[in-house]
Amino acid sequence: MNRGPARNQGPDQMTQDLRIGVIGTGMIGQDHIRRLTHVLAGARVTGVTDTDPARATAAATKAPGARVHASAEALIAADDVDAVLICSWGPAHEAAILPALAAGKPVFCEKPLATTQEACLRIIDAEVVLGRRLIQVGYMRRYDAAYRALKATVDSGSIGAPLMFHSAHRNASVPEGLYTDDMAIADTMVHDIDVARWLLDDEVARVRVLAPKRNSVGKDLRDPIFGLLEMRGGALATVEVSVNIGYGYDIRGEISAEQGTAELAESNPLVVKGNGQFAGRVPADWRERFIAAYDAEFASWIAAARDGGATGPSAWDGYAIQAVSDAGIEAARTGETVAVTLVEKPALYA
Amino acid sequence: MNRGPARNQGPDQMTQDLRIGVIGTGMIGQDHIRRLTHVLAGARVTGVTDTDPARATAAATKAPGARVHASAEALIAADDVDAVLICSWGPAHEAAILPALAAGKPVFCEKPLATTQEACLRIIDAEVVLGRRLIQVGYMRRYDAAYRALKATVDSGSIGAPLMFHSAHRNASVPEGLYTDDMAIADTMVHDIDVARWLLDDEVARVRVLAPKRNSVGKDLRDPIFGLLEMRGGALATVEVSVNIGYGYDIRGEISAEQGTAELAESNPLVVKGNGQFAGRVPADWRERFIAAYDAEFASWIAAARDGGATGPSAWDGYAIQAVSDAGIEAARTGETVAVTLVEKPALYA
Amino acid sequence: MNRGPARNQGPDQMTQDLRIGVIGTGMIGQDHIRRLTHVLAGARVTGVTDTDPARATAAATKAPGARVHASAEALIAADDVDAVLICSWGPAHEAAILPALAAGKPVFCEKPLATTQEACLRIIDAEVVLGRRLIQVGYMRRYDAAYRALKATVDSGSIGAPLMFHSAHRNASVPEGLYTDDMAIADTMVHDIDVARWLLDDEVARVRVLAPKRNSVGKDLRDPIFGLLEMRGGALATVEVSVNIGYGYDIRGEISAEQGTAELAESNPLVVKGNGQFAGRVPADWRERFIAAYDAEFASWIAAARDGGATGPSAWDGYAIQAVSDAGIEAARTGETVAVTLVEKPALYA
Amino acid sequence: MNRGPARNQGPDQMTQDLRIGVIGTGMIGQDHIRRLTHVLAGARVTGVTDTDPARATAAATKAPGARVHASAEALIAADDVDAVLICSWGPAHEAAILPALAAGKPVFCEKPLATTQEACLRIIDAEVVLGRRLIQVGYMRRYDAAYRALKATVDSGSIGAPLMFHSAHRNASVPEGLYTDDMAIADTMVHDIDVARWLLDDEVARVRVLAPKRNSVGKDLRDPIFGLLEMRGGALATVEVSVNIGYGYDIRGEISAEQGTAELAESNPLVVKGNGQFAGRVPADWRERFIAAYDAEFASWIAAARDGGATGPSAWDGYAIQAVSDAGIEAARTGETVAVTLVEKPALYA
Repeated sequence: MNRGPARNQGPDQMTQDLRIGVIGTGMIGQDHIRRLTHVLAGARVTGVTDTDPARATAAATKAPGARVHASAEALIAADDVDAVLICSWGPAHEAAILPALAAGKPVFCEKPLATTQEACLRIIDAEVVLGRRLIQVGYMRRYDAAYRALKATVDSGSIGAPLMFHSAHRNASVPEGLYTDDMAIADTMVHDIDVARWLLDDEVARVRVLAPKRNSVGKDLRDPIFGLLEMRGGALATVEVSVNIGYGYDIRGEISAEQGTAELAESNPLVVKGNGQFAGRVPADWRERFIAAYDAEFASWIAAARDGGATGPSAWDGYAIQAVSDAGIEAARTGETVAVTLVEKPALYA
Repeated sequence: MNRGPARNQGPDQMTQDLRIGVIGTGMIGQDHIRRLTHVLAGARVTGVTDTDPARATAAATKAPGARVHASAEALIAADDVDAVLICSWGPAHEAAILPALAAGKPVFCEKPLATTQEACLRIIDAEVVLGRRLIQVGYMRRYDAAYRALKATVDSGSIGAPLMFHSAHRNASVPEGLYTDDMAIADTMVHDIDVARWLLDDEVARVRVLAPKRNSVGKDLRDPIFGLLEMRGGALATVEVSVNIGYGYDIRGEISAEQGTAELAESNPLVVKGNGQFAGRVPADWRERFIAAYDAEFASWIAAARDGGATGPSAWDGYAIQAVSDAGIEAARTGETVAVTLVEKPALYA
Repeated sequence: MNRGPARNQGPDQMTQDLRIGVIGTGMIGQDHIRRLTHVLAGARVTGVTDTDPARATAAATKAPGARVHASAEALIAADDVDAVLICSWGPAHEAAILPALAAGKPVFCEKPLATTQEACLRIIDAEVVLGRRLIQVGYMRRYDAAYRALKATVDSGSIGAPLMFHSAHRNASVPEGLYTDDMAIADTMVHDIDVARWLLDDEVARVRVLAPKRNSVGKDLRDPIFGLLEMRGGALATVEVSVNIGYGYDIRGEISAEQGTAELAESNPLVVKGNGQFAGRVPADWRERFIAAYDAEFASWIAAARDGGATGPSAWDGYAIQAVSDAGIEAARTGETVAVTLVEKPALYA
Repeated sequence: MNRGPARNQGPDQMTQDLRIGVIGTGMIGQDHIRRLTHVLAGARVTGVTDTDPARATAAATKAPGARVHASAEALIAADDVDAVLICSWGPAHEAAILPALAAGKPVFCEKPLATTQEACLRIIDAEVVLGRRLIQVGYMRRYDAAYRALKATVDSGSIGAPLMFHSAHRNASVPEGLYTDDMAIADTMVHDIDVARWLLDDEVARVRVLAPKRNSVGKDLRDPIFGLLEMRGGALATVEVSVNIGYGYDIRGEISAEQGTAELAESNPLVVKGNGQFAGRVPADWRERFIAAYDAEFASWIAAARDGGATGPSAWDGYAIQAVSDAGIEAARTGETVAVTLVEKPALYA
C-alpha cells in the first residue's frame, strides 16, 4: 500500500475517518459536504474555506466539528486535514492543487482540472515530480453503474472492437444569457469527451463541431451542436449536445462495435400506463441522474485517499480533456477540423 | 424529536456515530457489519455476539473497535451500544427484542419479527407499553427505488384506486433438501405479502394458495405456487413464487388500477445487441437486485435510531405478515381459503 | 390435397378467386367484406345476406359483383358461393353452419361457434360424420405475430415446460348498460381461454373467478374479474379481465416456464420523449391491436378453403371454449370452483 | 380522379384487377410476383420479361395466366398490361421507364430510379411533359409503420421543429468481394438519405462521409462509414452504415427536435427471459424487417395505379437521392465536404 505522509498512522487508524478540507462551498461544495457528513462512511469534513467567508461559515455549520479557514493555503496546511476537496471555480484550481501536492495530501478536484492546458501541465509536472498519483478529477460518469457496465462489456471483447461511440448529452434548459456557446463544449461536452476516451481507451486526434439549425428556445445560443471526435486508433465518437431540449436530462451512449452494440438503458424505475400510452420517467437534471455516481465516486476516492493515493480520472485525463475542449471550441468557431496535440504521456499515467 | 434514553447527549452528539451492537454474525450479519463500517455514514459497530463465539470473534475483526459479547443480553446492556441490530435466526428474535425494548434501545430486526403470532404480539405489547416505536423490521423492498416509485404513483391517485397487485417472486434456485414447501411462503412470499399490504394500504382478509404443475427442477418441492391475497377493502393481490426458475432473480410487480397500471421496470443498466437479439441483464440474486435498498433501509434506520426512534416496517407489520404467512401455509396444505384474523391494531401503529 | 366438392376444378383453377358468401353484414361482416375485397388476394365476396335486407343491400354495394340473398340457406346453396363466412349473431350460427356442412362448403364462423355446448356438439357431430374439417372459428389471436412467436418459443422447449400463463385482457371501456357481467367471460375472456388452451396444449379442468374491488367507472358492472384456469396437466392460467380501464386496449400474456419466461412485447412503433418522460403508444382498441392478425387469419382460411378444407381453431376448440366459458360464468356467480367436463374428443380433431 | 388511358373503363371496372407486367424476374421480381399473386387484392401479374428468358419462363409459372414477353418494349405495349413493375438492374431502368411513360402506363420502379443524375433528369422531363405523375420509386421505408409513426409525430409539431435525425443502417453481413465501398452509399445509405429528406421535408445541401476504424470482418471493405447530411434548412442528418455487424439487420432512427425526441422502437414481438437476461429478437434481414412495408407499399401503388396515377416516392425523389448519393461517394473518396446541386424542382413534384 502506498500511504501518504499526512495520515495519522496510529494503531487504530482503520477506525479513523479521513479528515477532509473543502475549498469552495458553493452549491457543489455544499452537496459534497452533505455527502461526506451524512451519506458515506470513512470520512468527515474538518475544514472549509471560501472566497466568501460568510458562505464558508454557513457551510461549516452543516459539518459538525469543521473549522473555517481564511484561505486555501491555511486549510491545506492544517494538521486536521488529511485530504483536500476542491470545489472552487476552475481558474482557482491550480492555486489549490499545487500546495496540496507539496503537502503530500490527496486531492479531489471537481472538473475542470484547470482552465488552460498550460496550468494542467504544471499540475502534471508537480505530480510527476512527486512520483505518485495524488489527484482525482471529478468526471463522475465513470462511476455511474450504467457506464461501468458499458465499459465492462466493451472490455470483455464480447461485441468485438469498438468502432464508434454515439453520445447524446441533453439538458432540459440552461440559463439564458449566462450559458455561452463555448460552455456547450468546455462545461458540457467535456463529460462526453471523458467517457469517449475512457470507453475507447484512446486519445482524441481530431475534432470537428457542426452547428445545425438552432433551437428556437434559447435563441441567441448556438444549440444544438454535434461533435465528431476522431480517435488516434481510428474509432469515431459522435456527440450531440442539446441544452434546451425541455423534456429532461437525458444522457445516451451507445458503442457500435464489430459484431454488436451496447447502449445505456433508460433509468426509469417504473413503467406507468395511462391515457393511451406507457411511459417511463426521464431524469429532471444531473443530480437525479447521477446521484448514485457521485456517491460511488466519493466512496472510491475516500478509500484511495485513506491509503494516501488516488484513483479514477487523473490529472492526465484532466489535461487531455482540456486539450480536446480547446480544440473543440476552435473547431466550432472556425468550422474546421482541428487537430489535438498532446505532450508525451508521463509513465505515471500509463 | 423523540429521543431514546440510551443516547450520549453531549454537546457534540451530532458528530457521534450511532454505536450498534450486532446479534448474529452469520452471512447477513456480516454483510450488515460491512455496510455499517465501510458504506454508511453515522454509525459504527461497537459490539457483536453470536451463539458461535468464534464466528463472533471473526466478525469483530471486520469492525474496528467492536467488542465481542458473551450473550445478546450482555451486548444489549453495554454502555457503548446505542442500538441493536438483530440478525440471528427467527426463533431467537423475541429473546433479543424484549430486553432491547426494556433498555429503551432502538432495534433493527431482520425478518421475521418472530416465528409465531404469539411472539409477535408479546413484542407489540412491550412496545405499546413503552409508548413509542423502537422497532424496525427488515422488509427492505419498501426502500427499493422502484417500489418507492410504485408506491408514490399509487398514492398520487393518478391511475385511480388500485384494484389488483400482481407480484412475481422468482429465484434462480434454492438448495435442494434444505428449502421446504413452507419456506416458499414463510421465507419467500412474506416479502410480497409485505409490499401488497404496503402498496394497497390494507390488511389481508383471506388467503388461497394454488400449486400448479411442478417444476421438474427441484422435484420434491412444491414449486411454483400461486397465492391469492384478498384484501379487506376488496383489492386482490396475486403472487407467483417460483424458486428454481434458473434464469435469475426476478422481482416483478404491477398495480392494475381503475384507469391505468404501474409496473416495476427492468433494472438492467445496459442493452446489448449480439447474436440476433438485444438483451438486458436480470439480477443473479437478491444481493444484486436489492443492494441499494439495503443501504437505503439502513440509512433510514440510522437516522431514526439516532433520534431514539424507529421508522419503516413496524412490529405491527411483522405481526400481520406472520399471520398472513401462517394462513398461507395452511391454505397451501389444505387447498382451502383461509381467513386471516388480526388483533385490533394499537394506536401506536396507526 | 383434400379438396371440397364445390370448387370449380377447371385447368385454370389456381387463377380463380375463392367465392365467398357472407352471412351477417353488421360491423364485423362489413369489415371482412372490405378485407376480402380490397386487402387480400385469392378471394372475393359473391353473395351476402342479413336479417336486415337493407343492410345486406348496402353491404353488397361495397363488394362489386356480390348478390344479395334472401336467406342464409339460399346463399349457401348458390352456385357462385364456394365458401361461407358467418358473421351473424351467435344464436344464429348453428343454423348457418349445418347446411354449409351439408353442402360441403368451407365455413369461417366468427366466435362463438354457437352459444350452447349442445349446439356446438351438434356441429361437431355433423363435421365428424362428414369426415373432414370444414370449419374454422374466428379466434384470431392465434394469427397475431406476437402470440405466434410466444407459441413457437414455448413449443421450442427452450424455456422448459410451461407451468403458468398469465393473461391480462384490458379494454378502455365498454358501453354502460349493454355490457353485462356474463359478457366479461362469454365475450371477453373467451379469447384468453382460447390462447391458454392453445399455448399450453391442454384442456381446462377447473375454473375459478374472483371479483375484486370494483372499478368505480362502470359502477354496476362486476369489473375487473380474475379467472383461474387449472389445466388437466396441472399448468395454471390466470386471467385479469378489466373492461373499463380507460388507458387503452392492452393485451398482456406471459408464460412462466421451468427455466425461463416469455412475454408479449409492447406493440408501439415509436418511443417519444417529451415532458419528462419517454412513452410508447398502447392500442386504442381491438381493431388497432389485431388488424394484422385478422388479415393473416383470413389469408390462412382462404388458402385452406381453396383446398376445400379448414385450418386454425376448430369446432372442437369452439366447443371446449364454450364449456369453459359456461363453467366460468357459474364460477363467477357462485364463487365456487367449477369443473369443466368435455365429451371425448373425436379423432378428427386430434 | 386522374385516370390513366390504359385502363379498361367498363362498368365493372372496380372488380377488375390491375394487370401488371413485370420487367426483371430476379430475386426481388419473384418476390413481388408472389406478393401480387398471393398476398394483395386488386392486382395480378399478366406479363413478365427478363434478359434471361428461362428465368422469365420460370417466373411466369408462379403467376397463373402470365405471358412471357421477349422484351421490355413488348411487355409495355401489351394490351393486357395496365401497369409496369420494374425490377431489372439499375442501368436498365431508364430504357423501361421512358416507353412506359410514352404508353401512359403507371410505373413502379425499384430503386434506384436510374444510375446517373442525367438519366433521372430525362425521366423527370418525360413525366413533366406528360403533365402528371406516373412513377413511384421503391423506397419502401416510407410505408413502414414505425417510420410512418415517426413522420406523423414530427409533422404534428408536438416535439417542436426537428433539428437532427440520427440514422443507423446495420446489416448482418454483405458478400465479400461483391459488395464494394461505393455500394455502402449507392445501395445502402440511399434509404437513409430518402427518409432524412422525407422526415425533415427538405433537400440535402452538403454531404460529408467519415470512415472510422474498419471492421476486421470484411477486411477489404471501408466499413463502417458515417455520413453527415446538412439540409438546406440547417437540420443535420447523421447516418451510421455498418454492413458486417453480424448480430442482425438493425435499422435505427431518431429525430432530435426542439423540445423532444422520437425514435423507432424495437420490432421484437416477444421478450424472453433465460440465462440471466431478458431478450428480444433483432430482424435477421431486410425481408423480415420490412415485409409489411413492402406489402403496404404495393397496396398503395395498386390503388394509385388503378386510378391511372402514382403516389409515394416520385421521380424527383429518385433524382435527388441520386444526387446526394453521387455527392456522398465523392465525399467518401476525397474526405471533403461536397455540395449537392439540384435543378429547379418542377411544379409537378411540389
